[in-house]
Order: sequence, then structure tokens, then C-alpha cells
Amino acid sequence: MTFATRINQAISRTGSVTCVGLDPRKSQLPAPLREHIRDNSPHAWAKAYTQFCCEIIDVVKDIVPCVKPQAAFFEQLGPAGMVSLGEVIHHATQAGLIVITDGKRNDIGSTATAYADAYLGSAVAIAAAGGDPAGASPWGSDALTVSPYLGRDSIEPFVDVCDQRAAGIFVLVKTSNPGGGYLQDLRCGEQMVYQAVAELVTSLNVDRLDADGYGPIGAVVGATYPEQLAELRAAMPHSILLVPGFGAQGGAADDVRVALDDSGRGAVINSSRGIIFAHARSEFAEKYGDAKWQDAVRAATEEMNDQLKS
Amino acid sequence: MTFATRINQAISRTGSVTCVGLDPRKSQLPAPLREHIRDNSPHAWAKAYTQFCCEIIDVVKDIVPCVKPQAAFFEQLGPAGMVSLGEVIHHATQAGLIVITDGKRNDIGSTATAYADAYLGSAVAIAAAGGDPAGASPWGSDALTVSPYLGRDSIEPFVDVCDQRAAGIFVLVKTSNPGGGYLQDLRCGEQMVYQAVAELVTSLNVDRLDADGYGPIGAVVGATYPEQLAELRAAMPHSILLVPGFGAQGGAADDVRVALDDSGRGAVINSSRGIIFAHARSEFAEKYGDAKWQDAVRAATEEMNDQLKS
Repeated sequence: MTFATRINQAISRTGSVTCVGLDPRKSQLPAPLREHIRDNSPHAWAKAYTQFCCEIIDVVKDIVPCVKPQAAFFEQLGPAGMVSLGEVIHHATQAGLIVITDGKRNDIGSTATAYADAYLGSAVAIAAAGGDPAGASPWGSDALTVSPYLGRDSIEPFVDVCDQRAAGIFVLVKTSNPGGGYLQDLRCGEQMVYQAVAELVTSLNVDRLDADGYGPIGAVVGATYPEQLAELRAAMPHSILLVPGFGAQGGAADDVRVALDDSGRGAVINSSRGIIFAHARSEFAEKYGDAKWQDAVRAATEEMNDQLKS
Repeated sequence: MTFATRINQAISRTGSVTCVGLDPRKSQLPAPLREHIRDNSPHAWAKAYTQFCCEIIDVVKDIVPCVKPQAAFFEQLGPAGMVSLGEVIHHATQAGLIVITDGKRNDIGSTATAYADAYLGSAVAIAAAGGDPAGASPWGSDALTVSPYLGRDSIEPFVDVCDQRAAGIFVLVKTSNPGGGYLQDLRCGEQMVYQAVAELVTSLNVDRLDADGYGPIGAVVGATYPEQLAELRAAMPHSILLVPGFGAQGGAADDVRVALDDSGRGAVINSSRGIIFAHARSEFAEKYGDAKWQDAVRAATEEMNDQLKS
């Protein structure tokens, strides 16, 4: 079973297109986790990040299709953080969630292959595709976000590994930050830069489609640009879209529903802070607070599921 | 002392603009290192990578200004490889070398800050700038390569950390791979995409110049595009250039000398495979071979220094 098939089936099974972004930050961890930090060492924080993310995974695993750990926050702790990232990815895939590592990696040729080899391929996905789960990658995630600045020949090594390991990538097309248009919206003749990237994504997918018409090359398209989201849904009919920017960054449910296909699949909508730090949101703080932060995570996830359905 | 000042002083001190790329690969390690791998575990390979890179550092530390570990090859080993990367960076900075971590990282806003916080700032550089070396980053490198696809507001968080920690970044402008032009050479009105990135780099440097006119925002410009290298040297007069693609990728000494300023500084030329796997090159294999691989590294580094001088 391919990555695209797996993610669409997970959407059907859970009835949700929510992707929970795992972005641990020291200062925002719930008090019960921060209180255990005695020596302020990277190892102590890494242990807290693992516990935080694994508890979130346990709380949301039956109501969302996927999670997206943000590599940067783990790397911020140094090597200890990278151990934590591996533990979190393992816990999530074993819990039945699809894991998209958000690393925005890329490089040339054989170096791109090294990144692909590092992150792409979970034991669960490889086994589901009839392969040997011992061939999973060291980090063992199902998918990785990839930056396109180095061009087509920097993406192809990732695609090769996707083919071998039933994995996927999400190429940055239109990012959710206010300044995303600086390069992405440059007009080059008939098209914008982001449209050229979308074309590249589609061309890489065409020979790799599953029965529903989806390939392993997804695309990141921010919720903060609703018009381009609709346009890019049409321009990349074979791509699972990963839509960041919902919630804390300002994207609304009506804005992002255009990312879905007619069957309500084909895209996942990410929320990080709004879910994982829900205990600090005004509407949840009194009811749950730090002590019941896991219940706040569950409530915020269900709220987002409901918003995206209605 | 700023990053740019430090790198130009290191060029003057060593009389070299060579940057040694630390790209360890399992299959190409010299036999004496491969022979110690008994259980094929990531930990065993990570230990071999650390030994390989640290021995290279010891061999070249008095004849080159800097080294560039490629994060991807360390990540390929999983968490154990990231421990090795930290050890290698620490060994190199303690040996007096400037360390450019090649991670091509980037993300939006506070996530970009996390990457900057993770990689930028060596204890040596911070102490040389009069700061507290305890403020060094977990990975402790002097500089990081950064991808520009997310635009100006994704680069600025890195610049802020450069200012705080006497660090530098190298923004990808024109990469050395054959397909680098796919996006980078798109013509957008008056300029190409890579020229827009060069303009951004220059605009970020102007308020941050040292006595020689250099700022902390360097640029990656491949040796494989000599004409653009000369053009970009002129377009980014305040940037240290990091020039990959020399040697194994095809760039020649005459091609890359245009990257230097009138004083023979302002750029470093990277070679990875041609130096670190010199023991396997036909011209060195017989004289040194695997047994004296360190001597081959030294000879290849001196050869490159000579080529770039003549």
C-alpha cells in the first residue's frame, strides 16, 4: 500500500483530516512536565519532550490520521533532542498514526539520498506494502517535508526512496508565513515561482498514481492563502496537500476546506500550538489548565475535527 | 570579532581558502576504520565517523581556515550520527578551525529561530567576541547553510542569532548541481530568481559590516557556474562566498578564483570527496592507500591549496 493510499484510508477511518503538529517548546510545556526538570540539562528536557509528545499521541491516536513532529524543536536540544525525535516517531507509528517529519530538508544528488535514507520509511508502512520492516529508516517516519530551491534533481532522490519504502514527501510550494511570497510569488513569464514548483510536483507524480489517483509527492500549501489553496488543489490533483497555518497562524475552517477533494480526503490540515498547548488557551484554561493538559489536547483536537466537518 | 572577520583572518593566517567538506560515507571510509565495525550498528558507524572526521581535522587544522560537516550523512545514521556530528564540530572548533554546518535548514518565524538556536554560535567565537562561551549553541558551529525558499522573514531569525553569537549563515543562491537552474534561473522580469536572492543577502548585510566591508550573511555559489560566480561576487560585495563543486563535481581552480576579493580573501572553496577520500584517488592510491589515508588527506589538501594559489 502506498503512502497516499494509507493517508487517505486513515482519513476515512478516523473521519478526520486533522494533523497534530508536535512542536515542543520549553517555556510552553504544561507545568507537570516542567516541574520534573531539575538540572536544566538537554537530557532532562529531551525526556520531557518525549513524554509530552507521546502522551499527546496516546490522546489523539484514534481521532486523527497523522502527526507532524517539527524537527527544529528537537534539534534545538542538541543530540539528546534527536534521540527524543526518534522515540516520538517510533511511538506514533506503533500507535497507528502516520508520521510526517517536518524537516524541510534538501540537498544535491547523493546528499539528498542521505536525507531520504535517514527519514523516509517506517516499519509499519514497509510491512503494509509487503516489504521487510527491517528496511525502515533510522528515524522511521512515513514522510518528510522537502524544500524545492535546488530543483528537480534534488527532489528525485527522495522520490526514489519513496518508491522503495512506501513513503511520501511534501514539497514546499506555498508556505504560510507572511513573507512566503518574497520568492514564491515572483512572476516568471506566464507563471509564478510557486506555480513552477506545483508543475514539478505534478510531473513527478504522474507515473506513480494509486487507484484514487494520488501519488507519493505531496505539497505544502499554507492555509493563510485561501485563493492559492483552491488554485493549487486544482493544479496538483495527484498530491496529498499538507496545509499548515490553521488556528494560531490565522487560517479558518472555511479557508482550508477547499484543499480537500470531492470525497473529503486528499489533504491534511495541521494545527500545532492550538492543540498541543490548548491548556493555555483562554477557552480551555479554566476547565483543564496545566493539571489536565491531556484533556485540553483531546478537546482542542475534537473541536478542530468538528470545525472542519461542519 | 564577527564571523566574517574571523574567517578572513583565518584565510590570512593559513594562506588558504580551502574548506574541507566532512561528508563521511560508510562504503568509502578507509579500510582501517571499516575494519573496526563488527556489529554494523549505527553506534559503531557513528564512532567510526567521529574518528574519521577528527583525524582529518587534526591533519588539516594548520593548513586550512575551515571545515564543513554535511549534516545529512550524520543524520543518515539516526540519533547516534547526530551525537557524532556534535563531537566532530566540538573537536574542530577546539582545534581552531571555523565550522560551517551544512544543513540547508529553514522554516518560518519561531521555527527558524529554533534552527538558529540549535546550530549557530561556537564557544570559541562567542569568547572571541567578548561574550560568555556558556552561551554557545548545542551543536556549537560558527555558521550554517540556509535555504531561501521561504523568503526574507525566514532568514531574519537566523540573522538575529548571528548578531547575538558572532555567527554567520550562508544562504543558498546558486547551487552546484546540474539541475540547480530549474528554479534558480527562472527569469522574473528584470532578474533571475537567484539574483533576487543575492539582492536579499546584500540588503541583510548592509547594516552589519566589519572594517573590511564584510557582514555575517554569506552565500553559497557553486564552482560549476563560473560566469555567475563572477557576477555574484560583484552583486554581493559584503558576503563571504562558500563555493562548493570544486574537484569531484568539476569546478577548476581558474573557475573559482573569481570568487575571491582583491586581497585573496572573502571566499572559501569547498572540496569534500577529493580530499577526505583521497586515499582512493588514482594519483594517491599507490603511494598512500588505505593504510596511510591521513597522509593522502594532507597531500590532497596541500595540492588544492597550491592549485588555488598558482
